Amino acid sequence: MNGAESLIRTLVDAGVDVCFANPGTTEMPMVRAIDETTGMRAVLCLFEGVCTGAADGYARMAEKPGLTLLHLGPGFANGIAYLHDARRARSPIINLIGEHATWHLAADAPLTSDIESLARPVTAWLRRNKSAEELAADIAEAIEAASIKPGRIATLIIPHDCQMDAANGPVAVRAIAPPPKVSEDSINQAVEALRRDEPRVLFLGGYALRERGLKAAARVAAATGCKLMCETFPARWERGAGTPVIERLPYFPEAAMAAISSYGSVVLAGAKPPVSFFGYPGAPSYIISPEQRTSVLATPEEDVADALGSLAEALDAPLSIDRNTIVQTPPRPSGQSERITPETLSAAVAALLPENAIVMDESNTSMGPFLTMSQSAAGHTLLTQPGGAIGLGPPCATGAAIACPDRIVINLQADGSAMYTLQALWTQAREKLNVKTVICNNRSYRILGIELMRAGAKEVGNQAQSLIGLTQPAIDWVSLAKGMGVPGARVETAGDLARELERSLAEAGPQLIEAML
Amino acid sequence: MNGAESLIRTLVDAGVDVCFANPGTTEMPMVRAIDETTGMRAVLCLFEGVCTGAADGYARMAEKPGLTLLHLGPGFANGIAYLHDARRARSPIINLIGEHATWHLAADAPLTSDIESLARPVTAWLRRNKSAEELAADIAEAIEAASIKPGRIATLIIPHDCQMDAANGPVAVRAIAPPPKVSEDSINQAVEALRRDEPRVLFLGGYALRERGLKAAARVAAATGCKLMCETFPARWERGAGTPVIERLPYFPEAAMAAISSYGSVVLAGAKPPVSFFGYPGAPSYIISPEQRTSVLATPEEDVADALGSLAEALDAPLSIDRNTIVQTPPRPSGQSERITPETLSAAVAALLPENAIVMDESNTSMGPFLTMSQSAAGHTLLTQPGGAIGLGPPCATGAAIACPDRIVINLQADGSAMYTLQALWTQAREKLNVKTVICNNRSYRILGIELMRAGAKEVGNQAQSLIGLTQPAIDWVSLAKGMGVPGARVETAGDLARELERSLAEAGPQLIEAML
Repeated sequence: MNGAESLIRTLVDAGVDVCFANPGTTEMPMVRAIDETTGMRAVLCLFEGVCTGAADGYARMAEKPGLTLLHLGPGFANGIAYLHDARRARSPIINLIGEHATWHLAADAPLTSDIESLARPVTAWLRRNKSAEELAADIAEAIEAASIKPGRIATLIIPHDCQMDAANGPVAVRAIAPPPKVSEDSINQAVEALRRDEPRVLFLGGYALRERGLKAAARVAAATGCKLMCETFPARWERGAGTPVIERLPYFPEAAMAAISSYGSVVLAGAKPPVSFFGYPGAPSYIISPEQRTSVLATPEEDVADALGSLAEALDAPLSIDRNTIVQTPPRPSGQSERITPETLSAAVAALLPENAIVMDESNTSMGPFLTMSQSAAGHTLLTQPGGAIGLGPPCATGAAIACPDRIVINLQADGSAMYTLQALWTQAREKLNVKTVICNNRSYRILGIELMRAGAKEVGNQAQSLIGLTQPAIDWVSLAKGMGVPGARVETAGDLARELERSLAEAGPQLIEAML
Repeated sequence: MNGAESLIRTLVDAGVDVCFANPGTTEMPMVRAIDETTGMRAVLCLFEGVCTGAADGYARMAEKPGLTLLHLGPGFANGIAYLHDARRARSPIINLIGEHATWHLAADAPLTSDIESLARPVTAWLRRNKSAEELAADIAEAIEAASIKPGRIATLIIPHDCQMDAANGPVAVRAIAPPPKVSEDSINQAVEALRRDEPRVLFLGGYALRERGLKAAARVAAATGCKLMCETFPARWERGAGTPVIERLPYFPEAAMAAISSYGSVVLAGAKPPVSFFGYPGAPSYIISPEQRTSVLATPEEDVADALGSLAEALDAPLSIDRNTIVQTPPRPSGQSERITPETLSAAVAALLPENAIVMDESNTSMGPFLTMSQSAAGHTLLTQPGGAIGLGPPCATGAAIACPDRIVINLQADGSAMYTLQALWTQAREKLNVKTVICNNRSYRILGIELMRAGAKEVGNQAQSLIGLTQPAIDWVSLAKGMGVPGARVETAGDLARELERSLAEAGPQLIEAML
């Protein structure tokens, strides 16, 4: 057995058995080991950003590490943006990076670069393997490092000769330590804060927004009458019918402050204190003002679901509650020839959302009303983009679909962002994934027009307009999808949108709908 | 005047007046400054890898810095791969990276990351601007750092508030120091080496392959009878009719050693000692053996064109020589229904190459015979990929076309690599560039199949094949091009290929030909 085989076997034995890959020459022994080992599924992505974004989506849904196989420094570099997003999402990810043979490094061959410097900003655990014999132990440690809940990024750099040399065999991964429990004190402080005679809000993030956390949060709200609010870009949020109504913190700092400033007491559960996405002159970095009393029930690294359960018990909260005040499915928009707008688009998707769908939302400015409208839709999982590196949507949807083959994935996708990672459509076609992509085609980086106005521009000049507008030429998404084997349709009215969405949901495999806003 | 305006004005005054951009919120003051300043041309690219690759192509052809405008760490990260290539090409590049406002950094907002750590591996000059008042001086220094021949990469990180605060005005860039001249000793040693009574080779790289260097190299060859050879992946090589015949060092180490081992004396002129692209068991890192006598006329950082001129003088070389032994234009392939193969494809392109074309060659395994066949073609500039980060072709061709609007750019492009940066086609359409892309569609990462066999794999298993083959689904490049506003045609025979190529060369604007190998 060589180093590469001991590596792949250790991964498979630990249940890490899907690899999002774009290998090159220095990874060939790992490719051969995947070939010769039973149990590892290799998924080819035609650009490394698709590998890392898919690993993120996979990890969020599978709740185990997403694995990538990348080629040297430049191949890894192409994946950094979505590792940045995965780091903010606290997703468990393991990157395998092939490297030149140890004896060849000094020659400074063309593809040589400082991989560690590139990896450090997005990696919690980083190691350069030194020999084939240590490779299985190295990857076992990487699996352990990545798997500590909620999740971290581990990166292992593996020289070509270490992959090929003789090794002893796979290594068993130790039991993963559970996330730390919160102290009695934190729970008592939260009890006190939520019993104050003033408006109170329980501010949720991370694992608080998954099933166990939500059940407990609903009990806490029922017992105390506190408001439930959550971070602006949750990594994963179980919502729709049967889940508690939670208000999402708005994006812009003025609106965010307006939404939360009336609460004298804020209890953070699995969320960091929210900050403005960007620093705007005149607006503060931190959304919660120093006048508001803030207490921390659980940090994102602590066991927030358990902490919420203990809090509910400490509050003598009822065990069973009507967790959703809205029970009616959102109505399908009736105006067949209505224009597609953020409102009609959001309404159509909310109304037609199939039971148990996964929604990857990177619609940015195009579907503002969707979160409110889908609150009472069929139960679904929402994935968003906690790190702000645009283009995560298509790969993240791809990885989620591989993690959950029995669920339909709907990718609500802004056009400008989609251009970053359109290659993901090819992997969706190859793997026959049930990903339905709705391209919100507004022919612009609309957020930048908004930001220019916010920055006080009276008018947008030609040069600035040329950096915002995605016209000249207009992008034809149906042709792009066709080029990668994904059937597509363009729709111009709300009625056609609803019809196409229904049709595509009924068919197996990937589909793309280009909604012209 | 604010910081951003002082920055843009300093750039324009120094002649750095084209900016390949994908800005975001933190770059809005720079976008406004571009809008309000006369003389800066902003070119929008829909993915940052297109920005950096285009800046590289532009810099190689314009012989002045290529400028990029990128958004924070993740936006910069998307451009790293082609900055890696640009670093190996020794292209002058200036990256402007917007950063959060200084006062907002501590809040660790979603897009915050360690930009310096990401930038260091690809950057020779790196600075974080500290105030609006220093911004003009910082960029002036960046321009100077990048412009030192042959060229370096300079990166300036610019906080949002420093762009907006008041500044004094633009700063004049000091005269750029010429590259260092080589010593008398280096020339004497080269004279001695090239007069030895054994096979001798003058091994060229960098600026030796541009007009002045080539003229002098031809004189040296005429005077001494030495062989002319060049590095495997030159950044820029003036070739075809009227230029000396130069053999390119083969790619694989066994072939490279076979090509050069018979020369007892090797004189390096603007090239580093060649090394194997990858380290293969049993093959050495360095192509030139220790038994061969190697001397260095000029390093890549020294003034190699001047050194070659001095060498020619020292050798009393004739001033005017017949620099090309082959004068006949390569014949156009006659078999109209012949299959498209590396041979027929190469022959067609070589025969139809228009005078003064720029050829960006990222054809990888698909056009092996092209370099030999095009040796006697119409005079042209060849650009290749010195850093090995695949996907450089489409953006590099885009930048070259912007630098040279009166020349036709032909991008010979492998299909797997093209998928990395297909967004470049959109910029070609928007800017109406004369880029003719020939997609060499062999439906695979063919080099990886070759590498697997070299590594001793007896057969390619299902999993390995799934990581090499680009079928299931086949990629339809004509649809992809159409989606981005570039007219395209698919050809299946050598005759149709020649006809389509002739037609597309006669039309203005971008065109794509999908050649089915």
